[in-house]
Amino acid sequence: MTIAASRPHPAAQRATQAPASPTTGHDGVVRALSVGPLGLEAGGKLPDVTLAYETWGTLDADGGNAVLIQHALTGSTHVAQGDSEEEGWWDGLVGPGRAIDTDRYFVVAVNILGGCNGSTGPGSPAPDGKPWGSRFPFVTLRDAAAAEARLADRLGIGQWFAVVGGSMGGARALEWAAGFPERVRKCAVIAVGGHSTAEQIALAQAQTLAIRQDPEFRGGDYYGAAAPDAGLALARRIAHISYRSEAELEARFSRKPQDGEEPLSASALAERGRYQVESYLDHQGGKLVQRFDANSYIALTEALMSHDVGRGRGGASGAFAGSPVEFFLAAVESDRLYLPVQSEALAEALPGEVPVHRIVSPIGHDGFLTEAGQLGALLSKTLFR
Amino acid sequence: MTIAASRPHPAAQRATQAPASPTTGHDGVVRALSVGPLGLEAGGKLPDVTLAYETWGTLDADGGNAVLIQHALTGSTHVAQGDSEEEGWWDGLVGPGRAIDTDRYFVVAVNILGGCNGSTGPGSPAPDGKPWGSRFPFVTLRDAAAAEARLADRLGIGQWFAVVGGSMGGARALEWAAGFPERVRKCAVIAVGGHSTAEQIALAQAQTLAIRQDPEFRGGDYYGAAAPDAGLALARRIAHISYRSEAELEARFSRKPQDGEEPLSASALAERGRYQVESYLDHQGGKLVQRFDANSYIALTEALMSHDVGRGRGGASGAFAGSPVEFFLAAVESDRLYLPVQSEALAEALPGEVPVHRIVSPIGHDGFLTEAGQLGALLSKTLFR
Repeated sequence: MTIAASRPHPAAQRATQAPASPTTGHDGVVRALSVGPLGLEAGGKLPDVTLAYETWGTLDADGGNAVLIQHALTGSTHVAQGDSEEEGWWDGLVGPGRAIDTDRYFVVAVNILGGCNGSTGPGSPAPDGKPWGSRFPFVTLRDAAAAEARLADRLGIGQWFAVVGGSMGGARALEWAAGFPERVRKCAVIAVGGHSTAEQIALAQAQTLAIRQDPEFRGGDYYGAAAPDAGLALARRIAHISYRSEAELEARFSRKPQDGEEPLSASALAERGRYQVESYLDHQGGKLVQRFDANSYIALTEALMSHDVGRGRGGASGAFAGSPVEFFLAAVESDRLYLPVQSEALAEALPGEVPVHRIVSPIGHDGFLTEAGQLGALLSKTLFR
Repeated sequence: MTIAASRPHPAAQRATQAPASPTTGHDGVVRALSVGPLGLEAGGKLPDVTLAYETWGTLDADGGNAVLIQHALTGSTHVAQGDSEEEGWWDGLVGPGRAIDTDRYFVVAVNILGGCNGSTGPGSPAPDGKPWGSRFPFVTLRDAAAAEARLADRLGIGQWFAVVGGSMGGARALEWAAGFPERVRKCAVIAVGGHSTAEQIALAQAQTLAIRQDPEFRGGDYYGAAAPDAGLALARRIAHISYRSEAELEARFSRKPQDGEEPLSASALAERGRYQVESYLDHQGGKLVQRFDANSYIALTEALMSHDVGRGRGGASGAFAGSPVEFFLAAVESDRLYLPVQSEALAEALPGEVPVHRIVSPIGHDGFLTEAGQLGALLSKTLFR
């Protein structure tokens, strides 16, 4: 598998096609498999889809202990450290002896279709050998789940014991439950509702425009040249503000100037020193451009804008009428992007009584990542009891 | 007075230097006066400052009935319709028979220093005759109040009966009360706290970057050529989301597609149809670029980032210790940009017991504009009783 991107993505470079065994050993190391051509919900088609994935633990002989962990917008398959040297983004939740115990469960994480960490995305080669770029088709979360179902087939997983995700990962988990109810025993949907709302769409538009308006974007055909880093970093800043609560930003930074800088300079338009919160957001933006492709950011953001599990299914309640899936819902109490009330609305649409568990955190949406231990305790009492 | 901008600003074009009388007649028509050279808080200097202003009503012989209305970030001096054909942005509050009754009070509104509606700003000519552009110095709200005090001198106003403003206008009003307590009898500070917070600074940074990263920006020296309209429109989108509540956006737009458009198109990166909320924000951005200069947007946004009435004054409580000014505070209950709790913190810093009145509105920050009648009723019972 090759990736055509303006900058190498370490995880993608580690991905190896057709490993000796697609399921055994190499915990937390990226592998990749082709799942063939894929017709897309919005009408396009991808002639050959590769999905990168990582696994932890061992699949039972009957295939009944498989757990799918779905990453968020700019997340990766590296959920847990495993045999790798790199920490995982949910190490507190997934690993030996953790709530999602990799001594007991066979855990799989798949880089989403459209991504830039080993799966087919805008930076991948199109049939003409050149990167898809501007030609990459519109993919939805439903398309992503369809591709992942093919991967599950290849891995010998008929039914997941559980599909678990937060934020866009939660939306991806929900699409699995709606699209393949017979293949999902349990489903954990964390810090996301049943559809993207007007505000989420509005913030997403601002982010995609920040990239599109970068002169280096060139309509999406920037591979082999400079990437639209400034636009992607601005998109990340806008997003990151929404991932954190007002109170957290205030407590950490208030209006303090960055060390050695003076925000009240004699020049306004040319140059001035920064406030700490500006430096912090510069850092967040700068980190993302080192590891993420701008086209994938747009493709996945637009996939997330399209999130509506009830589309074409009679709404969310229609999508889950008579569903055999056991659901777990949780929301971060201080989340101002994916409001707890949106999780409650989703709960209303599900069969039976599904409580919305609260993750207690002052920091906002990102609490679903930082409070992995708390989430683990909740899951240990419910889906993973 | 001339304005060098990439696009004519109608109000600025109407401005006339040295009218027959600076205070009589021509209600709601822009005039302008030079207030001379101005040294600036952050260290720069402007050799000649012109301020554009409008007036309504007649100044009493003793000058005791003057009310200063301060506009918000992209607001103008056109508070009320007066003799003009154009509606004012606070017609429900200011006019004959209104809470701020122009049959009784002499109302003045001044275009803020750094603006683009007749006052000296980045688009104005520097001493070399070329627009200031990137050379325009950093101006603070304190500088703006200092320039306005000179204008008040020219107009023969020794003490304002009241200074009133919302959002950045409220911050400007507060700077008047702190800087010139003997010249302000009453002060209404609406929908803003005593200083800009980390989140407000963060959102402001994203907006200024959106403009700075527009290739047409050229460091601020774009006059005479294409203006950074795309960047300014993006800045406005980011701002506008923060001016409206999540609930209002959801109630108006939810995830409905724009009429005749299809958000789930076959192409993601090249083109797709829009959601209604995207079309709405496109419209908001497009409207602003027709009437506002991008450099002024940056200069005023950075002035607002610098808002801290307690700077160099021992904090807000030091700034107002023993102040003779009678204060009125109000906050919009659903405001998620200038949180009511921030108005409450300001109230704590003021001498005596100052209640924070609540403007009841579901729409968020912009409620301070849309609920002019409600605000008028509150002011009629307090400062303007």
